[in-house]
Amino acid sequence: MYRPEIKLMECSIRDGGLMNKHQFSYDFVKKVYKAVSQAGIDYIELGYKNSKELFSPEEYGPWKFCDDEDISKVIDGVESDTKVSVMVDVGRVNMEDVKPASESPVDMVRTAAYVKDIDKAIAMANEFHDKGYETTINVMAISRDQGPDLDEAIEQIESECKADVIYIVDSFGSLYQESVAGLVKRFKKVIKSKEIGYHGHNNQQLAFSNSIEAVIRNANYIDGSIFGIGRAAGNCTMELLLGFFKNPKYRIKPILDVISEEFLSLSEDIEWGYHIPYAVTGMLNEHPRTAMALRASEDKDKYSDFYDSLINSSMD
Amino acid sequence: MYRPEIKLMECSIRDGGLMNKHQFSYDFVKKVYKAVSQAGIDYIELGYKNSKELFSPEEYGPWKFCDDEDISKVIDGVESDTKVSVMVDVGRVNMEDVKPASESPVDMVRTAAYVKDIDKAIAMANEFHDKGYETTINVMAISRDQGPDLDEAIEQIESECKADVIYIVDSFGSLYQESVAGLVKRFKKVIKSKEIGYHGHNNQQLAFSNSIEAVIRNANYIDGSIFGIGRAAGNCTMELLLGFFKNPKYRIKPILDVISEEFLSLSEDIEWGYHIPYAVTGMLNEHPRTAMALRASEDKDKYSDFYDSLINSSMD
Repeated sequence: MYRPEIKLMECSIRDGGLMNKHQFSYDFVKKVYKAVSQAGIDYIELGYKNSKELFSPEEYGPWKFCDDEDISKVIDGVESDTKVSVMVDVGRVNMEDVKPASESPVDMVRTAAYVKDIDKAIAMANEFHDKGYETTINVMAISRDQGPDLDEAIEQIESECKADVIYIVDSFGSLYQESVAGLVKRFKKVIKSKEIGYHGHNNQQLAFSNSIEAVIRNANYIDGSIFGIGRAAGNCTMELLLGFFKNPKYRIKPILDVISEEFLSLSEDIEWGYHIPYAVTGMLNEHPRTAMALRASEDKDKYSDFYDSLINSSMD
Repeated sequence: MYRPEIKLMECSIRDGGLMNKHQFSYDFVKKVYKAVSQAGIDYIELGYKNSKELFSPEEYGPWKFCDDEDISKVIDGVESDTKVSVMVDVGRVNMEDVKPASESPVDMVRTAAYVKDIDKAIAMANEFHDKGYETTINVMAISRDQGPDLDEAIEQIESECKADVIYIVDSFGSLYQESVAGLVKRFKKVIKSKEIGYHGHNNQQLAFSNSIEAVIRNANYIDGSIFGIGRAAGNCTMELLLGFFKNPKYRIKPILDVISEEFLSLSEDIEWGYHIPYAVTGMLNEHPRTAMALRASEDKDKYSDFYDSLINSSMD
């Protein structure tokens, strides 16, 4: 009933951190890491590796930078088979901050890039690979970049890149299952030497179904987060993924427990999940930044005006 | 780009009423009817037609009974092309309460039934048809009834029933897109003289994607509700359906307005939507009643214990 090749990546701290400047306490991150380990989840992403010259450690929490020492602080002493991942954005990392894998608690480095930056991403991913890490390239905002440049990027990735996994990232929560099926097929037609991954956003409540669709089309790496935490509408919920996949190594109860004990109260402090402005940016294939700005303003529930403003700005 | 045969049914008052004993004010229902009419939605379901001998009008609101006079009270004077529907459950209606269509503001009567009650449902639907109504049969809890009895029911419906539409109802929010695709195919193989409909529940955040899947497989009648209101996890959200369907007759803004003005505050009084106990009953293919009881108790957020209780009771 289950496909052993499927790997789950838990990215609550990394993607959820976009809603609180990555200011999760060490205690909280340790609890998440414990729960994820007990659940038998394959990978956990603990944050970004950003340059401290670009972002101030006074403004942002430790998971914006993911120093090896901070990672060790939360994972040391916990029994775990879960591998640790960090994400880098093209142009935001000091490459020398990433030590050889043999000297680091990190197992995987994921490079996030728009299609236009794919050359840089390939060079970075190859360098991380050569340092001994498992590597991925995460192609962001793909709902906006489906023209010939995407085909060129896919071919380049196959021929030039040493990354193990190439992710399709629906940054805007805009894809429907037919578009996901089409994209995975398009990637798999060219990419024969690497796995395909899928990272969804839940603007239109489609992150889970799109992840299932990606798996049906033979993507094997799927991202989720606990209770769906993540930027704006958030991600595919890990608890639903665990209820769906039949691999006996996965256990849902540690995730249910950490939701009861930690994420319910967190959801009172940080907003994520289904809100109409996020649904609107998703259905209009727009970046959620305008919706996030609206939600932080006193007009947060003026949906119809917000809809008009997006329609009008796209017609200008 | 759009299929003109597709019809949308708005069922906020009927399905949402299961969470408040159908005690919506006339004013509220009129506002919903106005918004639905302005949105160009094809049908609105205003409640159940239940016998007052079985349910007390002192305990339940008018939309549990849908007297013609109550319906007229909210629809009269509103410009509208939206047709009015009511639902009946097998064994809960006095047939003589349903007057001929020519004497009633109601356009459609939908008969909800489990597979085991299909004979009764067919007899009732035929009677409503003969009284001049558009009619449907809604086959409930289909995730539990997928054996040979379902095939027999489908064949009987095609050969004996005068209903215009046969609905596949995922009462437990348990179906995945592959199961929806399979069910629509199974129905359409036999049912040639009627349309197929789909009514989803959102326990696993799959109501919208499953509705899309049903449409891809040529179901033409889709149920939704404003902001997803409905029993337990609720239904497919109408605003997402309107964002998806490209028929120019549909307008999303009246629905966004009524969410801002009415449904946000309502959601503080009545609970519906994504909650872990509903997700758990969905993934375990169980009726949500145990989850609803939990949510009404002081243990409402003890998810892991709830999960255990369901697993253990299913093994007894």
